[in-house]
Amino acid sequence: MRVESWVVRGPAIPMTWEAREERAGPDEVVVEVAGCGVCHTDLGFFYDGVPTRHPFPLTLGHEISGVVVDAGPGVEEWIGRAVVVPAVLPCGACDACRAGRGQICPNQIFPGCDVDGGFGTHVRVPARGLCPVPDLSDPQANPSQLDLPLLSVIADAVSTPYQAVVRSGLAAGDLAVFVGAGGIGGFGVQIAAALGALAVAIDVDSTRLDRMRAHGAATTIDASEMPTKQVRQRVREVAEAHSIPTWRTRIFETSGTVAGQSTAFALLGHGGVLSIVGYTPKPVELRLSNLMAFDAIAQGNWGCLPEYYPAIVDLVLKGRVALRPFVETRALGSINSTFEELHHAPANRRVVLIPER
Amino acid sequence: MRVESWVVRGPAIPMTWEAREERAGPDEVVVEVAGCGVCHTDLGFFYDGVPTRHPFPLTLGHEISGVVVDAGPGVEEWIGRAVVVPAVLPCGACDACRAGRGQICPNQIFPGCDVDGGFGTHVRVPARGLCPVPDLSDPQANPSQLDLPLLSVIADAVSTPYQAVVRSGLAAGDLAVFVGAGGIGGFGVQIAAALGALAVAIDVDSTRLDRMRAHGAATTIDASEMPTKQVRQRVREVAEAHSIPTWRTRIFETSGTVAGQSTAFALLGHGGVLSIVGYTPKPVELRLSNLMAFDAIAQGNWGCLPEYYPAIVDLVLKGRVALRPFVETRALGSINSTFEELHHAPANRRVVLIPER
Repeated sequence: MRVESWVVRGPAIPMTWEAREERAGPDEVVVEVAGCGVCHTDLGFFYDGVPTRHPFPLTLGHEISGVVVDAGPGVEEWIGRAVVVPAVLPCGACDACRAGRGQICPNQIFPGCDVDGGFGTHVRVPARGLCPVPDLSDPQANPSQLDLPLLSVIADAVSTPYQAVVRSGLAAGDLAVFVGAGGIGGFGVQIAAALGALAVAIDVDSTRLDRMRAHGAATTIDASEMPTKQVRQRVREVAEAHSIPTWRTRIFETSGTVAGQSTAFALLGHGGVLSIVGYTPKPVELRLSNLMAFDAIAQGNWGCLPEYYPAIVDLVLKGRVALRPFVETRALGSINSTFEELHHAPANRRVVLIPER
Repeated sequence: MRVESWVVRGPAIPMTWEAREERAGPDEVVVEVAGCGVCHTDLGFFYDGVPTRHPFPLTLGHEISGVVVDAGPGVEEWIGRAVVVPAVLPCGACDACRAGRGQICPNQIFPGCDVDGGFGTHVRVPARGLCPVPDLSDPQANPSQLDLPLLSVIADAVSTPYQAVVRSGLAAGDLAVFVGAGGIGGFGVQIAAALGALAVAIDVDSTRLDRMRAHGAATTIDASEMPTKQVRQRVREVAEAHSIPTWRTRIFETSGTVAGQSTAFALLGHGGVLSIVGYTPKPVELRLSNLMAFDAIAQGNWGCLPEYYPAIVDLVLKGRVALRPFVETRALGSINSTFEELHHAPANRRVVLIPER
């Protein structure tokens, strides 16, 4: 079928609207895009020379929701279904996948990096790993009346901190500390709170912190004018007030900055777990031996296994993780100006681009 | 009962031989020391201002084997038994212990730090966690005819890398890379090999590497005149030659140096696990986000749970982890000159001090 999309022809060169033919091969589907979120990673590909695995020309976009309109042999049952397309689609067949390590599947498909992504009318992806979305017109299933484009942000911004939270071993009653309450941390705080943890949001932006107090954070800490030692002291006070030991404290680095990594590492206590969820290419100086002295763990997190997605959709539809205050929708046609804007001033809301129809 | 030991009265002041009364309280035993290993930690306490939790005057020594000669109410069955005393004795009753996190038990007893240690005729410790040693006169149980003093090094030098190896999830056929083949790494390499892994020893000392080739290392890498990139390339070649993926590669930092930590971190690939076993108070600069990009883990390791000790004693007695080439015994009376010597030039063998009788 004929599809159209915004194609990157070269770094920072305005994307152009182009047509191509797509056809679902065996075990593949074509999804009509409802919405596609703009991620910091897209800006890295477009402006900062972070290489995509498939070279330009390429259509970016990996935070996709939509409806399956074509399906190849073997997966015809998907036709007509509303889906969220996980940002990382492991092959399911390799040694890593069979060992439960789909996050590092060497054959994984990352739309907008390995293949043409979601900034277009349609996207072709493997059917394996797609997350079906319940009937959104059913008020029982969808009491908050969320729409399909909004759900696109589940594919990375919500699912990535979800996997990090699950892997950290977070349990009800634990302390969950997020360093960075932006696009990833804002959802992370809500997920941790929804799972029964006491969530603490740390940021340098008071607007973000105000929003987190209304959405899951039991405590917020403005680190903009506070030395790391004082931030650590504040976190310890919260933990002590709730009798939560260090080994039931999970720290999430969701700022993707050197300052954030430095703070997050300094928050580790005996038996603590630190999740590295944000990314910065810059090095950081830290006392790695603290991990030994504290019998602690620093755990990196890449994407989210498709297996976790149904539980995430459930949390979102039940309103336990709010999307609306954290998401802004725009027409897909604004992509070049939107990229330019986000490149210069990171938004406080995730931008979802919606194809015009 | 009257016991005698070498007492530290102040930092770097020669220890003095002093007598005291000891009596096993409820759930406690008094062990007649067969041997007590000298650990880098002891030198840190004595020379470098690392604080012991119980202030001086104190008897150091936490790597102890011996025979139980007195037992308090409730644990009388221990009398007469040969034992290894774990360096870390968790209380077994607190929340952390009940959650299986004895390593970070806040009430843990570390002889020679919390209470008088093993550089004496006797030591008083909790019975809980003691590791019974089989009858060493039985050639079936002890084919290599090891003696009880030698087994003291199990209490830290062997058990600490053992726990790190177990926690790393190492399985037969995996690649185990040790950065540092000294007091800890030398045993780590043997343990990994005994568990069926392909073990690689990296060091800057060719004597140590020669020894590792005879004891478990499938490959050794002399990093003394090689940039980190080349070390990484060599490790990759070994992995590829044996078709071992990065996510089945476990890296162990056992040098306790900044250079070692830097190298070990650089060896991480997709899905890798890095164990921090050695200690240095110095900071290191590294790209922490690699953990995220590689979906990798850096895991600190403190001591070893007493539960693991019987399996370790078994590996040692079966000759699968050799002690003799890695251990040197001396009379306890040499303690002051031995400390002085080790302080100036780290030995290539663990020194075990044996009380004169």
